[in-house]
Amino acid sequence: MVEGVHFRLQAGWATPAEVGHRALAGALSDLAAMGADPGEVYLVLGLPQGFAHEHAIELVRAAAKLAARAGAEIAGGDVVSAPVLIVSVTAVGWAEREQELIGRGGARPGDLVGVTGQLGAAAAALAVMSGRAGTGAGAGAEQAMRRARHPIPRLREGRALALTGAGAMIDLSDGLASDAEHIGRLSNACVRVELAKLPLASGVAEVAQRLGVPPWQLAACGGEDYELCFCISAERRHAAERAVREAGEVEITWIGEVLEGPAGARFSDERGVTVRVDGFEHRW
Amino acid sequence: MVEGVHFRLQAGWATPAEVGHRALAGALSDLAAMGADPGEVYLVLGLPQGFAHEHAIELVRAAAKLAARAGAEIAGGDVVSAPVLIVSVTAVGWAEREQELIGRGGARPGDLVGVTGQLGAAAAALAVMSGRAGTGAGAGAEQAMRRARHPIPRLREGRALALTGAGAMIDLSDGLASDAEHIGRLSNACVRVELAKLPLASGVAEVAQRLGVPPWQLAACGGEDYELCFCISAERRHAAERAVREAGEVEITWIGEVLEGPAGARFSDERGVTVRVDGFEHRW
Repeated sequence: MVEGVHFRLQAGWATPAEVGHRALAGALSDLAAMGADPGEVYLVLGLPQGFAHEHAIELVRAAAKLAARAGAEIAGGDVVSAPVLIVSVTAVGWAEREQELIGRGGARPGDLVGVTGQLGAAAAALAVMSGRAGTGAGAGAEQAMRRARHPIPRLREGRALALTGAGAMIDLSDGLASDAEHIGRLSNACVRVELAKLPLASGVAEVAQRLGVPPWQLAACGGEDYELCFCISAERRHAAERAVREAGEVEITWIGEVLEGPAGARFSDERGVTVRVDGFEHRW
Repeated sequence: MVEGVHFRLQAGWATPAEVGHRALAGALSDLAAMGADPGEVYLVLGLPQGFAHEHAIELVRAAAKLAARAGAEIAGGDVVSAPVLIVSVTAVGWAEREQELIGRGGARPGDLVGVTGQLGAAAAALAVMSGRAGTGAGAGAEQAMRRARHPIPRLREGRALALTGAGAMIDLSDGLASDAEHIGRLSNACVRVELAKLPLASGVAEVAQRLGVPPWQLAACGGEDYELCFCISAERRHAAERAVREAGEVEITWIGEVLEGPAGARFSDERGVTVRVDGFEHRW
């Protein structure tokens, strides 16, 4: 994560602790999407001249706190000088057997498409922080920002879904629009998503209204929500729901199905009309 | 490694391939210093706007070539945008038993102090590239630069020394002056180095003459030579020489001994006078 590209440190954007948390969350989320157990984490800090020592400590402490919570261990790293703040995280994950791990290419026609938790907080927070949602952010904006600043990698849920037989899984780091497209392309199948079914994080509907866009646009096009999107055969629907409920703190929402057809993703709005949902903006 | 801090890309300094080689060499050298076998390598590139695609490929190819030569494998990584070129390498090393690994705190009074290979090429190259050694670099400067641009991590030598019973080892990334100091402090002993015994890389004496400094200043104060400095009991002297000769391509030079006394390092010049040898300049 690079200052000015993935985060800003100005007032109202991100604190050093939030940067540390988010950098680690992003790396651990990749392990969650494979159903891997987190292991060693290596943390490299690039610090600009004048960056306060105590801010570096806050950053590392927040990362260490999330690591402990996730069952990972910060095992090494480095500190160097850099023109802007840079946080480079390498997280190593483990599985007993390689077959327990899950990729992005195993979705099959007939599978259901599910997501964990709720979407859109990161995109809503970005809209608020950049001023696009108007001034005087309401309660919804506050909720979205709180969620966006402390994303939780869904490690236990990912492991449970892998063991329950999910065929393909990805974490929503770039946004559902492009992440579902990845699964569809690599599985040579059509991942069909009904946008009206997307579970919205608190505050997302309110921010969408201020922006004058449908709420699903924030939920489908924004990155860094770090929930999981997965495909699993319809017969395992209840087993997946139960496994995720027992493993973690979030629920599954079923948002579509996998069809024969052109490899990729297809999105339909509340009227069933196919719509384009690209236009994702990554820059914080 | 950060552009403008650890390397420059202007003509006459470093090519993208050399940056990739050096970044990986630095990470693998840390494994060499522990006597570890290299395993998985994770490579993160931060690319500035306009950085040519083919230069990124050259960089990664050079890193992959060194990885293959070292018996390591580039197992993952990431590519992000950044204001300058950044190469972050995480290298994981392995040992059969933890006791086979070697730290920096095990030097004991009576030990001999040895180094692998030859020193000073990196400092000499830096002096030439920055223009401090005058214009019209001679043959010596060319030799030093060639060596400095392709440092070789001493993995087999490090492993051989660990198995032969070296008590403390470090790779010369910051320069012998500070690296020997690390060993002395962590071992609570005095690492005494005779500067006249330092093995000089080709061209170092010539560049030192142009600079008007004793050659040992380049050999002791410059970083990034990536040779190994180690301490081992005097009885194992011949075993260590044999093990290193059989393992790799370089020889050992004995440069001093470990004494009781204030924890740290002490350097004496050709007349036996204790001298200060700090003043290391890291910036390329």
